[in-house]
Amino acid sequence: MNAPIEGDQPPAPGSRRPGGRTARTRAAVRDAVLTGLTEHGYPALTVEYVAEHSGVHKTTLYRRWGSMEGLLADALDLAGEDDWTPPDTGSLDGDLRALAREVADSFADPAAAAAPTAFVGAAFQSERAAEALHAFYAERFIRCEEVVERASARGEAPAGTDAAAVVRAVSAPLFLRLFVTRETVDTATADQAARATLAAVTAGAFVTRTETGGRKPTAGE
Amino acid sequence: MNAPIEGDQPPAPGSRRPGGRTARTRAAVRDAVLTGLTEHGYPALTVEYVAEHSGVHKTTLYRRWGSMEGLLADALDLAGEDDWTPPDTGSLDGDLRALAREVADSFADPAAAAAPTAFVGAAFQSERAAEALHAFYAERFIRCEEVVERASARGEAPAGTDAAAVVRAVSAPLFLRLFVTRETVDTATADQAARATLAAVTAGAFVTRTETGGRKPTAGE
Repeated sequence: MNAPIEGDQPPAPGSRRPGGRTARTRAAVRDAVLTGLTEHGYPALTVEYVAEHSGVHKTTLYRRWGSMEGLLADALDLAGEDDWTPPDTGSLDGDLRALAREVADSFADPAAAAAPTAFVGAAFQSERAAEALHAFYAERFIRCEEVVERASARGEAPAGTDAAAVVRAVSAPLFLRLFVTRETVDTATADQAARATLAAVTAGAFVTRTETGGRKPTAGE
Repeated sequence: MNAPIEGDQPPAPGSRRPGGRTARTRAAVRDAVLTGLTEHGYPALTVEYVAEHSGVHKTTLYRRWGSMEGLLADALDLAGEDDWTPPDTGSLDGDLRALAREVADSFADPAAAAAPTAFVGAAFQSERAAEALHAFYAERFIRCEEVVERASARGEAPAGTDAAAVVRAVSAPLFLRLFVTRETVDTATADQAARATLAAVTAGAFVTRTETGGRKPTAGE
């Protein structure tokens, strides 16, 4: 267990301060949240657990993050601040296959799958986790725009192809298996998703005029 | 609140005894589970709540269903014992569009969406709920085989097209939006999913030789 870390300034939401004391505190707290999610799942995870495993005093956690929900949302925000870039294999076929296999491979490893699975599960319980998950994927979809831009430049995708729709299509059958129908995913299922998405792109199925990707309202909104 | 119902035989798993006293008890318990899921969500739902709202004594619930997990799994089993049949519009395009719109329409209504959403969420917490959800969708996929058989007979789908893969493809982008990326679904997103799936079917993307739809093992298996 780490020594308690105290007296830092609250991190601004979404700020990046690599190497600073605040950034180290935030990373230690994030790591404790991920470990706790993996061990206990969201509803059972407590601020006490995070305090014990991060070495950050409970009162500090409450002051900065407000609640377990706030801790969870910030851990997901921090997960989104990575340097992930989409594959660039030289063809749309290759890029889609690489994207799908990345999903299948990461969820085939129980250790790697535990935290992202717990985040998706927590969003059923917590509106703030749902918002953080929405923001995470919205930003991922923006990063993937270059895949479709390169494909358009090579003549592999019609003009006006909606990149987010393409990325949703290639990953959706895998996430459906993992989180809804509770089926296995593997290289064959990934490749099938990539083949299907390539055929749909080629046929112009993702050419859109209007965006339909708004935040899903909940019953209380 | 109903009067307590006591003294029935335990229902055999998956048995159908419409109109009998056991069937009425099971339906009352199922209704209480659904109401409780809608009001409180899975981890907060208790056997006490189900007893109070079903009028079935708590000791009876424990004796027959074992636990809240057992109650949840049986409610989902019972939901699968309906007379739902897939659309038959006369074309694969029409059938896929109808399937996708059915998902979008049912989840656009918060009251109709609450229980199925809670089941999907509960599967993150409960292995028995995950198994029941897997069985529910496996049976739904079998019912949908006739959609692809009719399409093949009309020359709209190549021989060897995997019906389950087609149904996963048309519903997956909608479930991804609802349960992972937390985005809105509507008629436009449903129609896009149908268009993309039709293009993929036509291109032979779902022609399979080997099945890959096994039950996803969990870390403990």
